[in-house]
Amino acid sequence: MVIRGALIGVSANIRLEGHEIAGVVIQVGHQVKKFKEGDKAGLGCIVSSCQTCSSCNKGLENYCPELINTYTIFSTAKTITYGGFSDIIVVDERFVVRFPDNLPLSGGAPLLCAGITVYSPLKLFGLGEIGKHVGVVGLGGVGHVAVKFAKAFGAKVTVISTSKSKEREAIEKLGADLFVLSHDTEQMQTMSGTMDGIIDTVSPAHSILPLINLLSPHGKLVMLGASGIKPIDLPLLHLILGGKSIAGSLSGGLKETQDMIDFAAEHNITADVEVIPMDYVNVAMDRLAKGDIRYRFVIDVGNSLCT
Amino acid sequence: MVIRGALIGVSANIRLEGHEIAGVVIQVGHQVKKFKEGDKAGLGCIVSSCQTCSSCNKGLENYCPELINTYTIFSTAKTITYGGFSDIIVVDERFVVRFPDNLPLSGGAPLLCAGITVYSPLKLFGLGEIGKHVGVVGLGGVGHVAVKFAKAFGAKVTVISTSKSKEREAIEKLGADLFVLSHDTEQMQTMSGTMDGIIDTVSPAHSILPLINLLSPHGKLVMLGASGIKPIDLPLLHLILGGKSIAGSLSGGLKETQDMIDFAAEHNITADVEVIPMDYVNVAMDRLAKGDIRYRFVIDVGNSLCT
Repeated sequence: MVIRGALIGVSANIRLEGHEIAGVVIQVGHQVKKFKEGDKAGLGCIVSSCQTCSSCNKGLENYCPELINTYTIFSTAKTITYGGFSDIIVVDERFVVRFPDNLPLSGGAPLLCAGITVYSPLKLFGLGEIGKHVGVVGLGGVGHVAVKFAKAFGAKVTVISTSKSKEREAIEKLGADLFVLSHDTEQMQTMSGTMDGIIDTVSPAHSILPLINLLSPHGKLVMLGASGIKPIDLPLLHLILGGKSIAGSLSGGLKETQDMIDFAAEHNITADVEVIPMDYVNVAMDRLAKGDIRYRFVIDVGNSLCT
Repeated sequence: MVIRGALIGVSANIRLEGHEIAGVVIQVGHQVKKFKEGDKAGLGCIVSSCQTCSSCNKGLENYCPELINTYTIFSTAKTITYGGFSDIIVVDERFVVRFPDNLPLSGGAPLLCAGITVYSPLKLFGLGEIGKHVGVVGLGGVGHVAVKFAKAFGAKVTVISTSKSKEREAIEKLGADLFVLSHDTEQMQTMSGTMDGIIDTVSPAHSILPLINLLSPHGKLVMLGASGIKPIDLPLLHLILGGKSIAGSLSGGLKETQDMIDFAAEHNITADVEVIPMDYVNVAMDRLAKGDIRYRFVIDVGNSLCT
């Protein structure tokens, strides 16, 4: 099937790859069942998987060993994938999610990676429940939607950040309940042992011991980003003494991505975006490098490239 | 309440602390409800906790901040606890578990730490289910009961060991399905991505990357031992790319300890023990240091000290 008029999110960590694509279906093959021309649709990180392995059978295509991402080349790919920097994209319907009518393409597009990346572990680890206390580390493109989803699930949410300047935004605009400065040891001590889970969206290497200390017994620290292959320090004794876990999580499968989009539409969750034309990209890159965006640039490829 | 005639397990890692105590109730206070004289009973790692915190309220006394262990002094303890090296022990009934009649005191005693230490994460992480594939790293006092419990739950069990000499024992005596030598990279590669969970019973620091590679997506590596406070290497990127977790776990709470003992009695699970008199302790220590015990010494304190 073919999607046209795509809007694509541009993240700080995975730049210019175009893996948060939203648009309108303009053509379907005769075997396409889920979509018809005119439907709003979204495409995230995945354009192909083996569809036969145990991960694919469980709807976890994101962990398929033969996964082909929407962007860049992978060893098992027969062709190079170029992401969403085009006015149309042709893709197997299995990897496309339906956008409910009330979900805007612009604010919905970044959910296709940022959104599912936080939704998946919140659900998997039972953090998306009323009465749970969830920490969100880092208030950027991913972190700000983590706050929105966790709040919509009914959790109490505390933002943990190095930047005091984000406190007001976190609480007044995004709806977080509390804000903690990660380098304020007194504040961190006050929160010690209170969190059922923490969604850590910060990629550069950082100490995880202060975060482990925030967890209650059986608490989970979910790491979404890594700066490379180099290991970080694991304070194993603290994990054992507290019965705590550290989990890694990588985006999500197609079924849960559709669930996430449906949930977002139902609860009016969108990413906070600044929609830009294609010729603004270089400026956007400079602003991303300075952290001057709250929280995602979205390129209006359709209106920039289609004439 | 008072327990007499205690048998105590002696582990390789926590020596001479006497925290796996089984015996017979010889006296009860007037407020004791669960036990009467003559009952078989067991006492594990815990003799006191605050009984009011969220961990205690969830039956997870093992994570209570005011926990008092059965042995050695803790900062919150008002008196020193000496473990099970006595012919009688006086203890609050909350911290005592009932031994079903068919569970022998000698083979049951080590379950009060070794048993619950593996039972708790097997249950918590859903590894104790038919169809799951569970790895057990290290075949010692804790590892050999991990194999027994995981098999009784219905899981497929693979023992991962550095010692080829344990293969026959693991499969023929303990009932493991498969055995993998951890330094045989070819064998380890064959098992790559196949395990839902791994119970790692080895305390000395060791690389966890080869174990992470054995896990399937959403798999859990449960670490039960640490050699000290020094951090170990956490290959974070591998956790993220595979959606895998590392969990620490420390014994278990009282409710789950009773559940474990009941399950053990129902499935005829005991630790493999060599019962010794008190005056054999020094020889037993030497043999423990050489790994010359399969798998737990149990001191018959009652018959050694009671005259």
